Amino acid sequence: MNKSRLEAFSDGVIAIIITIMVLELKIPHGDDWHSLKNLAPKFISYIISFIYVAIYWNNHHHLLSTVKHVSGAILWSNTHLLFWLSLVPFVTAWAGENHFSQLPVAAYSLVLFMAAVAYYILSKSIISSHGKDSVLSSAIGKDLKGILSALAYAIAVPLAFVFTPASIFIIVGIALIWLIPDRRIEKKLKEMD
Amino acid sequence: MNKSRLEAFSDGVIAIIITIMVLELKIPHGDDWHSLKNLAPKFISYIISFIYVAIYWNNHHHLLSTVKHVSGAILWSNTHLLFWLSLVPFVTAWAGENHFSQLPVAAYSLVLFMAAVAYYILSKSIISSHGKDSVLSSAIGKDLKGILSALAYAIAVPLAFVFTPASIFIIVGIALIWLIPDRRIEKKLKEMD
Amino acid sequence: MNKSRLEAFSDGVIAIIITIMVLELKIPHGDDWHSLKNLAPKFISYIISFIYVAIYWNNHHHLLSTVKHVSGAILWSNTHLLFWLSLVPFVTAWAGENHFSQLPVAAYSLVLFMAAVAYYILSKSIISSHGKDSVLSSAIGKDLKGILSALAYAIAVPLAFVFTPASIFIIVGIALIWLIPDRRIEKKLKEMD
Amino acid sequence: MNKSRLEAFSDGVIAIIITIMVLELKIPHGDDWHSLKNLAPKFISYIISFIYVAIYWNNHHHLLSTVKHVSGAILWSNTHLLFWLSLVPFVTAWAGENHFSQLPVAAYSLVLFMAAVAYYILSKSIISSHGKDSVLSSAIGKDLKGILSALAYAIAVPLAFVFTPASIFIIVGIALIWLIPDRRIEKKLKEMD
Repeated sequence: MNKSRLEAFSDGVIAIIITIMVLELKIPHGDDWHSLKNLAPKFISYIISFIYVAIYWNNHHHLLSTVKHVSGAILWSNTHLLFWLSLVPFVTAWAGENHFSQLPVAAYSLVLFMAAVAYYILSKSIISSHGKDSVLSSAIGKDLKGILSALAYAIAVPLAFVFTPASIFIIVGIALIWLIPDRRIEKKLKEMD
Repeated sequence: MNKSRLEAFSDGVIAIIITIMVLELKIPHGDDWHSLKNLAPKFISYIISFIYVAIYWNNHHHLLSTVKHVSGAILWSNTHLLFWLSLVPFVTAWAGENHFSQLPVAAYSLVLFMAAVAYYILSKSIISSHGKDSVLSSAIGKDLKGILSALAYAIAVPLAFVFTPASIFIIVGIALIWLIPDRRIEKKLKEMD
Repeated sequence: MNKSRLEAFSDGVIAIIITIMVLELKIPHGDDWHSLKNLAPKFISYIISFIYVAIYWNNHHHLLSTVKHVSGAILWSNTHLLFWLSLVPFVTAWAGENHFSQLPVAAYSLVLFMAAVAYYILSKSIISSHGKDSVLSSAIGKDLKGILSALAYAIAVPLAFVFTPASIFIIVGIALIWLIPDRRIEKKLKEMD
Repeated sequence: MNKSRLEAFSDGVIAIIITIMVLELKIPHGDDWHSLKNLAPKFISYIISFIYVAIYWNNHHHLLSTVKHVSGAILWSNTHLLFWLSLVPFVTAWAGENHFSQLPVAAYSLVLFMAAVAYYILSKSIISSHGKDSVLSSAIGKDLKGILSALAYAIAVPLAFVFTPASIFIIVGIALIWLIPDRRIEKKLKEMD
């Protein structure tokens, strides 16, 4: 399995995910301020998801940049990650449509949690097939940031049924934290040059 | 005809197929557990199709990795395969929408059968234009796994009208068998190094 | 302007066009033979368009393979061609939805006519920026096949209002003729090796 | 961060944006001239947006051709530009659906304004990470054309509520001006050879 084709396929899928979300932004029937106001929650939902998919694209690129050979485990861990990311347009539209009510926010949190778990599995697959001394292994270390994010999403799922705004706060907050690209890998790669 | 452009085009089409399927997962009108429950068959259908398209992408990659020059026959066999794969989102949505009733399951099986046949034709086109002694020819051999899968789908089509669960069992079962990537080609390529 | 990026962008757009057409194949409400029967004209329309877009992808590839440098004229002729191809999913769905009635068939013919004209303009742009002695120029010659196709589509437009089946016959017939890949360019390239 | 992957991802997103717009051209229910007439404003809207996205693809390519290394700032400025471009299909459909009435035209102008600002920020990010003496810096100069376009869009937003045709005139006019590819960068690059 060729690494560049895995990258190209992943890039293609992520590019399509980030773009087709706009198709879920249904055109309002009216052309007045009222119809625009109704669109607000869907639009906010769209912005958050756009940022999340962009973050995943960016981090995914960093992760794959350390790969030297693609094993079956890496291939399927990657497909597993793409599966959860492919559900982002669905939960985005559902959460926006229902003004961030309990169940849709819980579903949104669940998809983010599963994507974070899938990302973690992918990084473990890469480490296990490249050895513990590989660039990625030393760069990621225990990947505290990733584990803490996953834990926060795990909390956001049940929390949505108790106090939904707290779950929304977690989702938005972690997005902002991740907006800062992962300099750990970049740093290690530079040190090796 | 350039092989890398054929790969890139196929990758693009397959990436779009796997991703636009989520657009057929229509947003439920409600935001309660009941509307989520109604979504269950569509979601299960989505998962199965996602796995199938991913398997085809993976196997297609292995198949094309043996190609050295692209003939007109290879080009059109490839387009023929993409055509049947392009119908996967349609039968996925139809089967999910109708809770896996007779006709949609038969249609789903038919599309899988035709895709398997198209894949078989493509591999034959590659063999015939590269010679019987080529890597692919010796790696694939009689391609028992592929032929048996196609036969099983062929049985699943009429079976759907008699006992639909059996057809569903065939579809899911073969997906699980194929999840294990085709090591035959990989093995042969390694032996040649 | 880099040729490979123009190719990649065109491939991307054509791959999306050929794939999103399936989204216009709306899922039938029922799951019986009657609903499948209603789908027939849309499905036939889908097949014809799939073949046409695949032919354009193939010929477009042959055409661009002769390009050495991308001028502004080539860039915009290419965009112009992509514009008309982007309308194929629309006329496909409209013709299928209305069982190939007069106006939709005329619109379908018009889009094919404009795409043929756009393809002709693109080939002229390439020739004019690469010189009359270039590979393409001698290979295409007077491009009788292309000109006759365009003429036939031009006739199919008004003919749809008089005798619609004749227009359909023209559309299907020319697709079959073009299914045979353009060996003229391939031949010339081989002669030069 | 690898430049070619940034280009490929941007190309993918822009190719999808330009193509999925056609999905918003909803198939008319009828097949007569009346239903075609109702489609006219949506179709005009589609043409304008197709040209705008094509212009952005072209200019974006020229801009990135000067990039040597991709910083975090360039990456996120680029994502920011893609975000605003991703809204083009939405405002296109909304403006076409409502026959270019006040609010949709204002929204369309706003998206173009924000895209122009995002493009400006991206070019500044590239200059700041490549130095004032870089190719881009001397080629773009003060980018009068870009700044004037952004200003015109800024005027078109409020103007839509006073005299909508004037805003439409601005939108169409600037598209025509930009159709002529940006020769400034091309020129500088040639001088350096």
